[in-house]
Amino acid sequence: MNLPLSGDRLWADLMEMAKIGGTPKGGCNRQALTDLDAEGRKLLESWCAAIGLTPTVDAFGNMGFLRPGRDPSRKPVAIGSHLDTQPTGGKFDGVLGVLTGLEVLRALHEAGVETEAPLLLINWTNEEGARFSPPMMGSGTAMGIFTAAETLARTDRDGFTFGEELARIGYAGAEALPDFDAYFEVHIEQGPVLEREEISVGVVTHALCQAWYEVTVHGEDAHGGSAMAGRRDAMVGAAELIAAIERIALTTLTPAGEPGRGTVGRLLVTPDSRNVVPSKIWFSVDMRHSDEQALAAMGEALRAEGAAIAARRHLEIEVEDFWISPLVQFDPALVGHVRTAAQRLGISYREMPTAIGHDAVYVARQRPATMIFTPCHGGISHNEAESITPAWAEAALRVLAEAVIAAAGPK
Amino acid sequence: MNLPLSGDRLWADLMEMAKIGGTPKGGCNRQALTDLDAEGRKLLESWCAAIGLTPTVDAFGNMGFLRPGRDPSRKPVAIGSHLDTQPTGGKFDGVLGVLTGLEVLRALHEAGVETEAPLLLINWTNEEGARFSPPMMGSGTAMGIFTAAETLARTDRDGFTFGEELARIGYAGAEALPDFDAYFEVHIEQGPVLEREEISVGVVTHALCQAWYEVTVHGEDAHGGSAMAGRRDAMVGAAELIAAIERIALTTLTPAGEPGRGTVGRLLVTPDSRNVVPSKIWFSVDMRHSDEQALAAMGEALRAEGAAIAARRHLEIEVEDFWISPLVQFDPALVGHVRTAAQRLGISYREMPTAIGHDAVYVARQRPATMIFTPCHGGISHNEAESITPAWAEAALRVLAEAVIAAAGPK
Repeated sequence: MNLPLSGDRLWADLMEMAKIGGTPKGGCNRQALTDLDAEGRKLLESWCAAIGLTPTVDAFGNMGFLRPGRDPSRKPVAIGSHLDTQPTGGKFDGVLGVLTGLEVLRALHEAGVETEAPLLLINWTNEEGARFSPPMMGSGTAMGIFTAAETLARTDRDGFTFGEELARIGYAGAEALPDFDAYFEVHIEQGPVLEREEISVGVVTHALCQAWYEVTVHGEDAHGGSAMAGRRDAMVGAAELIAAIERIALTTLTPAGEPGRGTVGRLLVTPDSRNVVPSKIWFSVDMRHSDEQALAAMGEALRAEGAAIAARRHLEIEVEDFWISPLVQFDPALVGHVRTAAQRLGISYREMPTAIGHDAVYVARQRPATMIFTPCHGGISHNEAESITPAWAEAALRVLAEAVIAAAGPK
Repeated sequence: MNLPLSGDRLWADLMEMAKIGGTPKGGCNRQALTDLDAEGRKLLESWCAAIGLTPTVDAFGNMGFLRPGRDPSRKPVAIGSHLDTQPTGGKFDGVLGVLTGLEVLRALHEAGVETEAPLLLINWTNEEGARFSPPMMGSGTAMGIFTAAETLARTDRDGFTFGEELARIGYAGAEALPDFDAYFEVHIEQGPVLEREEISVGVVTHALCQAWYEVTVHGEDAHGGSAMAGRRDAMVGAAELIAAIERIALTTLTPAGEPGRGTVGRLLVTPDSRNVVPSKIWFSVDMRHSDEQALAAMGEALRAEGAAIAARRHLEIEVEDFWISPLVQFDPALVGHVRTAAQRLGISYREMPTAIGHDAVYVARQRPATMIFTPCHGGISHNEAESITPAWAEAALRVLAEAVIAAAGPK
């Protein structure tokens, strides 16, 4: 179908939205449930009103904009993402998914094309989890992963609740969003693969499973002048285990030979003095994999390495489960629509997992869903320097439009 | 010589001094230039006055108590240490050296024994460096390692200067301590060697040289979901280098086969988030050795390992010099007096270095000096649980008395 999709118009919308909370370094600070979030929502509402979409706001501030279809018995095909950003976020993370969806609806409106199924544009509340934690709170609550009560009671650093702040900015709605049975989300990759391989579009097949741990290494403090023999140095024990975590990630493979991922992002030293052998090291471990069995094997290897180091060094090493996120398969039919769209349009693509949480990952636990990735420069995101090219945005827009129409009909 | 040295009296003095700043857990908090420090000083003054010693206080609060000798042409033989403690310090670190000296002078007084050289008991100000940094400030200033002006201008966390606080507690004196040409200091080992080997006394031959560094590992932050390939993970680079530091300490030997010591006591992570590969790790390195060439070799090995890891992992690793303390040899004649004393008394001893800074180490840069170590339980110090036995204290007392008399005459 030859729709009047405009990459230029999409880019202009992105730049206009980016002014709301725009930072001197070219990024965006438009955190959830702030006045700027409300301003961004109002801009989206005005764009949606201009093409006759019907707005809905639910009790968590999630916004839906409905375009009717020809078949009243069908549930909508949804397109969504989020407008909120990190405190030093970029212009594209989340916003691209909402505004590509808007541009698809606008092109259909201009062309006067009716789809079989209705279409629904969604802006989920607080995907970033920057001001109110955890992330993906709006989609997670709508999908029943969080309860309404716990979400509304979440507080920011100043003690304001999610519920209070949502009401204050005027987006505590009363009705649920229309239910849907297909969901597409365009998002920047937030990794370097597509750019490095010079591929325009990522066809996202699944979300990696994750297991987060907290490790505590207990030794004994000693003066920096004490002899090496007899030391129970928690720091060196931790260093060995951190090196082992990288090895575990690289060597725990899926049947297809794909490695896992392992990250130690936080570490705390006790007592934290230059000339004292540390008695205690605490650190976080984030492990991810494309295969749940492989992820479990990584966790077992972590515990086994910890036990071996503890025995060798006369330390105690505790490995505690902190958080788990299961493997989420995206819907094969929707993934197929995206793949076929890229093929038909002659746009280069590769299949890939998302290793990062997104609204689509929570949605996929309850409804058929998938994602389309665009490259981003250097894989940089959650950063004011986050950037993409207009050509990348337009490629994702065209693939999205084709896939959505395939899902919604006409065939 | 058969002096009326009393281990019981020494122990009673230690327990009485420990009441000043005594903590509920049985330790001591008598930090330099506090009201409690003044109270401890006054108690020492009263004990010294009771045996007719002549007090002096210098401009840095260092206290001297002189007992005349038979030969007016000779300079005094000094015995000293410090009465100040860490905030959660013990009852013996420093105090033992002052009070064993006091007991030697008291026994000589009671026995009516005159030595050839005068004797001088010293309490150095602010050895611990807890409230005012750096440590060993009183002995360091008296020995010309720090200038008077810089010492008096040092500030605590609340902005009070050393000079102000010294005057406030009434110990800003006007005259220099009498000059001396021999110095003995009894101190707890602050390490586990003597207790483990069941040896009563350490004959301390030298102070290890030290080189402290600051290492910064620069990588690139990335999402915890990013593929392992292409990561520039500062944490794993740091972990490898920390493990290497232990190896370097254990394998860089003196000609006699003695290893060095290496400690990483502080470490800071940027940006410090569970699901972000760290872009930067900063950590401290404390290296010590009995041999200056071996210490230099350790530093070279640190830089070489850092460069190799940086090249392999596409990181940048900076190794910056932070502080250096030279090897200090104790005076062979005074060390000989201590060794001979232990032999004559039939007290078990071993020769050993001090790996830790002490007033004696600064004194030894300008005057003949040495130290006598006692065991301490578990090597624990700078801790309220620091402990020794009365028998250990008495063994050091007897060796000290014998060595001091040998140095001061009669022969």
